[in-house]
Amino acid sequence: MNNAWLDEIRWTEDGLVPVIAQQTGTGRVVMFAWMNREALALTAENGYAVYWSRSRNRLWRKGEESGNQQKIISIQLDCDEDVLLLEIEQHGGIACHTGRESCFYRTLENNVWKENLPVLKDPAEMYK
Amino acid sequence: MNNAWLDEIRWTEDGLVPVIAQQTGTGRVVMFAWMNREALALTAENGYAVYWSRSRNRLWRKGEESGNQQKIISIQLDCDEDVLLLEIEQHGGIACHTGRESCFYRTLENNVWKENLPVLKDPAEMYK
Repeated sequence: MNNAWLDEIRWTEDGLVPVIAQQTGTGRVVMFAWMNREALALTAENGYAVYWSRSRNRLWRKGEESGNQQKIISIQLDCDEDVLLLEIEQHGGIACHTGRESCFYRTLENNVWKENLPVLKDPAEMYK
Repeated sequence: MNNAWLDEIRWTEDGLVPVIAQQTGTGRVVMFAWMNREALALTAENGYAVYWSRSRNRLWRKGEESGNQQKIISIQLDCDEDVLLLEIEQHGGIACHTGRESCFYRTLENNVWKENLPVLKDPAEMYK
């Protein structure tokens, strides 16, 4: 397999790259996470998002517990070769561990962070 | 001025937060950058994006040279309080220093990064 495209990415000192996940069709930005080289190679190979969990220090196959996998539609790279943008199809319509469509569910209004997305599924149901 | 909302953000050790900029209307993700506390306060106060340039180690008023300012429509925060999503109106329709609409102008196709956005303006014209 030709992996030269992986060498074009400017990884951080920790060997990571920031990744933005965007829902295909609606264009909603649903998540931000990180990948290492192995995670990105697996993502491209299998067609489902695999991230690197910095808190758990291991590969994180998105949806491995919740079932909310992200099918890859496209993988895009920025001008500085150090950020990735994924176009994804979000299984279950829930990207956030809080049970919401997107992790970005608060908007600044008059100096207050206001919630603007409903909880679609109880996290206790998602991670039982 | 009430700045308690700034304290809710979990800044990195370096005092930064990653920021995704998304064009209002089209939903195109046009840029990824960083802000420190001062940059975000200025952004919220003036209604135009101010970032922290890690390479130049100083505040970077987006468009200060190119004229391609980003008018803020909304500022959103993620579930972990450590990533921001800006809905912006991109002046000049060009967010990237390469003269393109977006910094994400390459898509992975058959293990090759393929360009898929045209250069709208010669960078030499933008930064003269």
